[in-house]
Order: sequence, then C-alpha cells, then structure tokens
Amino acid sequence: MKFQTMTDTFAARTTTSDIESGDVFQPKFDAGGLIPAIVTDATSGAVLMFAFMDDTALRLTLETGIAHFWSRSRNKLWKKGEESGNLLKVTEVRTDCDQDVVWVKASVAGDGVACHTGAVSCFYRKLTGTPGTSGGVRLINAATRD
Amino acid sequence: MKFQTMTDTFAARTTTSDIESGDVFQPKFDAGGLIPAIVTDATSGAVLMFAFMDDTALRLTLETGIAHFWSRSRNKLWKKGEESGNLLKVTEVRTDCDQDVVWVKASVAGDGVACHTGAVSCFYRKLTGTPGTSGGVRLINAATRD
Repeated sequence: MKFQTMTDTFAARTTTSDIESGDVFQPKFDAGGLIPAIVTDATSGAVLMFAFMDDTALRLTLETGIAHFWSRSRNKLWKKGEESGNLLKVTEVRTDCDQDVVWVKASVAGDGVACHTGAVSCFYRKLTGTPGTSGGVRLINAATRD
Repeated sequence: MKFQTMTDTFAARTTTSDIESGDVFQPKFDAGGLIPAIVTDATSGAVLMFAFMDDTALRLTLETGIAHFWSRSRNKLWKKGEESGNLLKVTEVRTDCDQDVVWVKASVAGDGVACHTGAVSCFYRKLTGTPGTSGGVRLINAATRD
C-alpha cells in the first residue's frame, strides 16, 4: 500500500470543467497513490492487461515509452517485462473525462506475450452461465488469440 | 465506500492454479467490495469507459445483459444509461489471469455515446509532452472518433 496523494510530477487537480475539457493533464491518484491503467494492443486493440501506476510509474512510462506499474503484491515499482523481455512499448496514452484512469496502447516486445501465464493477453477466458444457478458462472477459453 | 469482502453470488477463491487455469469464475473483490471493469466497444474495440462493480452490479450485468456498476461518487448501484437511454448492451465478459478485473464488451444503445460529456468514449484525449518540462504533460483531442 502506498500513501501518496500529492505529486510534484503532474499538475494539481483544479475544476471539473478544466478536468473534463482542459488541456492540462492533472491525473487523480487514489488514496493509496495509485491510478488504474488499461493496456491494449496497439495493433489488434485487444485488452492485454490491467494494473495500477503510481506517480513514478506514470512518469517513467511517459519519459521512457516503456510501461511501468506499481506492483501491489511486491510493493514496488514494476517495469513490466524487465525479466522476460516482454516489455510494453507505448504508442499512445489517453486519459478519461475524470482523469482518474489511463489507457495505454502498446506493442509487446520479446515473445509478444503480455501475460505471465504465457498467453498473449491476460484476458484469455470469457464468462458463461448464470449466477445463482447450479452450474454457476464458468470460464471458457476465448475463441480469438487475444 | 462499501465494506463487502465476502459474496454469496460467486464461487469462493481457491488456489492460484485454479484461479489462473480453472473453469470456475471466482472473482476477487477488493477490500471495498469492488472489482475494476473495463468497457470496450463491441464493434470498434475502443475503450469506452472504466468503472467499478460490486457483487450486485456484476450479478445484474450477467443476469440482464445490461452493464451495471457501483457509483463511488453517489455510493449506490448505477445502471449506466438508465436516465440517458445510453445503456450498455453486453456482448461478452472476460476476466484476467488473476480474476480481479472484468473486461466487458458492449454496444451503446440510445445515442451511442458512453460518456456523460457527450463523447462516444470517455477517453477522448491523449497525452502529449514530457513530465517535468516547462510545458508539462498536456492533453489533445484524440484523432479518431472513439
């Protein structure tokens, strides 16, 4: 858990109007100092993974063009693919109306797989079935390669 | 803030192996009882919005085929588009390796806009510039319609 709600790297939050319509990036980090980050494949558009960034990870992502995150399980900065070689090369970063999420478009270097399980995308299963029934909600492999 | 870490609706969490490779959906809700939800356009693949679901919202999404969320600002169940008519009609739901995120593919009913600002997607701006420089990080309208 990080406890960092202020940042010197990015502009301070101002008004709703500025946040929604302005041209100054003023990201909102949560009470733990983190902002959600969605990563999609720059070519296929498939969602590859989801993680959180702290101020430093977001800054390094923008400065280096390689996606960095905050690992909540290891409680430290996480340069995705640093060991496997499957770095995420960033082609574009967007934010949403509230500026409390970032969407990173990237291509995967190395073996081209974003998931630690060896799958191209972490989202390799889709849901089927109905909550509350005897079978419950099950998972099946997604038909596409992503 | 919700304080709901147990759920009767979905299967209990078991082992890492089962979570990553099994066929039972056993979603992880955070300490506040929420799971992140990424919504993409079923046709274009663009990320439309990002929000959180609680147990009830996820159940209703799966049961009705209409995306529901937990509104952290209003502290209540949020049927997206209930007032505007811009309901999100779900075509597929996926989860990731850790089963702690859901990816919802949907088409937008009504006016076809997912964002309360009137934009098709909440991610209508992309980042440009470098942290720590005089200009800082700025936002420009994304070139595409999404």
